[in-house]
Amino acid sequence: PKNLLFLCVFAGLSAAKLLKASGLSPVVLEARDRVGGRTFTARNKETKWVDLGGAYIGPTQNRIFRLAREYGIKTYKVNEQEKQVHYVKGKSYPFKGSFPPMWNPIVLLDFNNLWRTMDEMGTEIPREAPWRAPHAEEWDKMTMQELIDKVCWTSFVRLFVNVNVTSEPHEVSALWFLWYVKQCGGTMRIFSTTNGGQERKFQGGSSQISECMARELGDRVKLQSPVYRIDQTGDTVVVETLDKQTYTAKYVIVAVPPSLNLKMHFNPELPSLRNQLIHRVPMGSVIKCMVYYRENFWRKKGFCGSMVIEEEGSPIDLTLDDTKPDGTVPCIMGFILARKCRKLSELTREERLRRICEIYSRVLGSDEALHPVHYEEKNWCEEEYSGGCYTAYFPPGILTQYGKVLREPVGRLYFAGTETATEWSGYMEGAVEAGERAAREVMCAMGKIPRTQIWQTEPQCVDVPAFPFVTTFWERNLPSVGGLLKLMGVSTFLSAAAAVGLVACKKGLLPRS
Amino acid sequence: PKNLLFLCVFAGLSAAKLLKASGLSPVVLEARDRVGGRTFTARNKETKWVDLGGAYIGPTQNRIFRLAREYGIKTYKVNEQEKQVHYVKGKSYPFKGSFPPMWNPIVLLDFNNLWRTMDEMGTEIPREAPWRAPHAEEWDKMTMQELIDKVCWTSFVRLFVNVNVTSEPHEVSALWFLWYVKQCGGTMRIFSTTNGGQERKFQGGSSQISECMARELGDRVKLQSPVYRIDQTGDTVVVETLDKQTYTAKYVIVAVPPSLNLKMHFNPELPSLRNQLIHRVPMGSVIKCMVYYRENFWRKKGFCGSMVIEEEGSPIDLTLDDTKPDGTVPCIMGFILARKCRKLSELTREERLRRICEIYSRVLGSDEALHPVHYEEKNWCEEEYSGGCYTAYFPPGILTQYGKVLREPVGRLYFAGTETATEWSGYMEGAVEAGERAAREVMCAMGKIPRTQIWQTEPQCVDVPAFPFVTTFWERNLPSVGGLLKLMGVSTFLSAAAAVGLVACKKGLLPRS
Repeated sequence: PKNLLFLCVFAGLSAAKLLKASGLSPVVLEARDRVGGRTFTARNKETKWVDLGGAYIGPTQNRIFRLAREYGIKTYKVNEQEKQVHYVKGKSYPFKGSFPPMWNPIVLLDFNNLWRTMDEMGTEIPREAPWRAPHAEEWDKMTMQELIDKVCWTSFVRLFVNVNVTSEPHEVSALWFLWYVKQCGGTMRIFSTTNGGQERKFQGGSSQISECMARELGDRVKLQSPVYRIDQTGDTVVVETLDKQTYTAKYVIVAVPPSLNLKMHFNPELPSLRNQLIHRVPMGSVIKCMVYYRENFWRKKGFCGSMVIEEEGSPIDLTLDDTKPDGTVPCIMGFILARKCRKLSELTREERLRRICEIYSRVLGSDEALHPVHYEEKNWCEEEYSGGCYTAYFPPGILTQYGKVLREPVGRLYFAGTETATEWSGYMEGAVEAGERAAREVMCAMGKIPRTQIWQTEPQCVDVPAFPFVTTFWERNLPSVGGLLKLMGVSTFLSAAAAVGLVACKKGLLPRS
Repeated sequence: PKNLLFLCVFAGLSAAKLLKASGLSPVVLEARDRVGGRTFTARNKETKWVDLGGAYIGPTQNRIFRLAREYGIKTYKVNEQEKQVHYVKGKSYPFKGSFPPMWNPIVLLDFNNLWRTMDEMGTEIPREAPWRAPHAEEWDKMTMQELIDKVCWTSFVRLFVNVNVTSEPHEVSALWFLWYVKQCGGTMRIFSTTNGGQERKFQGGSSQISECMARELGDRVKLQSPVYRIDQTGDTVVVETLDKQTYTAKYVIVAVPPSLNLKMHFNPELPSLRNQLIHRVPMGSVIKCMVYYRENFWRKKGFCGSMVIEEEGSPIDLTLDDTKPDGTVPCIMGFILARKCRKLSELTREERLRRICEIYSRVLGSDEALHPVHYEEKNWCEEEYSGGCYTAYFPPGILTQYGKVLREPVGRLYFAGTETATEWSGYMEGAVEAGERAAREVMCAMGKIPRTQIWQTEPQCVDVPAFPFVTTFWERNLPSVGGLLKLMGVSTFLSAAAAVGLVACKKGLLPRS
């Protein structure tokens, strides 16, 4: 049999595209009745089109821009003309830039030290093998919450974790989170709109990329074909799907999140480390919510639509303007994340909308926010064939113990999916990297390319240049709060305070917040 | 259709047994070619019989004793006549009792305080709803390692966690671990041989219980029938198995570990919380190793065969005598646990045996340990239909966010498996509790019994009485090390030390070991 099989989605399609271009005969088995996986562009008259899943792209994501360019899909910049708003302790503070500014000098030092420390720790983590970092074991044993407790007092960092990885700081390994931020290019690149991961969207929606690839592959793409069995006991791999079809192939690329490998019954069984890895890397929790308004009222008030909302009672932590680039279909996109997602999953759609409009009204200081004309939402936690969004996370202890088998082939099975990428893993870009790498692994196994060509770098997209984030002298050299206190010679005071704190901590098991 | 379906194992069999006794017509679909699941008694001439999986039973596990009694399966006491050995820092210390004694008075205080604290914290955790404990959120955000760092300095506690839940203290939620110990009856009950969870074994092997139940159910038990699809879109539930059979039932009891729910494709999809829960509760890691010798040489040296080995280089942390009750087939059983299991999975069987014999030789001070006559081992991490052993663990943050849906029915699906139990969850006892409870949930749904009869307590087994663990006045009232230091008025010293520690901690990101 000449077939090559790919299960699912973005990475699978990009693998298949590359293999077909190399003269091979791939088949793509897609579980859903649509391609795109965790990207999903819905079309209707109220929205024209709306990205219910992965949508944002930005500088340094060069592979996805290459595909878009090939298919003639245009990008546009997310609106950041007017001011953003930081809402904290019940008040709105307009600002410009990547992060909300901090006015209290102590908080500023702490904040500055936090980003600097995270990026510095990131420099010693190899993006392709974070388990080989010099402090890998030590950092992997800590949750991100523990690291935060050691490094800073700033409350904002919880939101930063929630927004970037749709999970809680106490749920994820510090090593894994630091790796995640690093392989996206650092704290500024991952969180920024302008010059960062949220700079742009695709005109017409992100699913178009998958749709174009699927069109190119024609009837090689089989929809509604969830794979439930993979047998490689013979000379070929035999794959069975829920619609009772059997496919035979020389090689298979499994392009689903690691934990969805569990949807398949393997013969022979997977090796022990992989068999356990796939139980250990859950998907994050997010509901993506789009609220539509008659008018783009926030822009008139001088707000671009980006809100950073620090308030436990708010369903939404972060918003971006989702109005179409021509100014039609005024819309605000917001994320319900992690703990809030689990809690609000149990409400009705109407109740969620009501609470969202309420907080928008308070943050933007406008009653108009209370009168939406349309609402779209997508709870990714409900999706059997995603398990959650945006991506898998590693709880403490897992990356160092199981990470190395993440993309290690098993017989004739190769592994793709954005979780196996080394640049922008968790994003569309990572899916393309992973799919193409897996395709080249198969080509290498077939003797068509040398091993040295499996991993390839991508030239920068000319239309979307990446600018470095320039740090100031002060950002590089200001002390941390701890450092400042030492400088000021208040060690006596510190000793006393620390002792009280430590005793309280040991005795009463107080949270170290 | 009159069928009721049970997927897998111990809990499934006990559910089916109860339902058949109530006049219903259950069918059991078992993935493997044998019943028993995580219990597995192998028979051969070298061993007569050997429990490669779950084996130990003890007082308060009354349901499993009831079943054993019904089938005439005898139990015997694990040999604890002679002395146990505690091996630490390269030296062997013989002892008697549940825990190794500590001679250093500071370590003794710390040790005493640790068990007392864990049991006290346990008292405020409801066994049927640990997420409702007054400090549930706070304790669930901590890993067990964080709690240990707050409570004690004793190194032994890591081994205690490894042995009880086959995972690392930094991998598991403190709330979950405290709950786990509590629902087994506390630190003494869970860890003890005499009067505890390891007091006895079944004469002839633990699988006999499943085998007897299967025999009673006759051809209602279908082996080699892994379920891959569950459809409850119609009036009945339609279940498909890998051997291409289709079963139809009014109700289904899913009696597999939570994460193995992922092996099935559900229509309609599971509700969002359950859909995410099943990605979040991995199975522990263990290789069970039995080394056979010509003679029971350790008993002659005054050792019973129980070893508690604190040494990073040792593959094994804990052993028990596994000689047959009549003194034949001399054998030592040992566990390779958690981090060591993952590391040693990659060695050959011969290399593992060599390393095991080496440490036994050192601990028992005998060259005879280097000359085994036979070896049996079972790496449960390789098993596709277990995912690991003994049981599922909850990483930080999961129990409070997802715990409540653990055994919440979904339409006509009910959930059993030892993970859903409230007494000895993780053990054979828990599997029986869960299976019988799920069976009564189905009977209740059918209108055959009232809701109040679903949960039933079990009278104490007359042959295996449970004795209370008596604590001494000193055990109850000795201060912790922190408390002692305060009593001694060394607060000045403490302040300075704490301050140094805190600054070092904040600055250098040292581990808090």
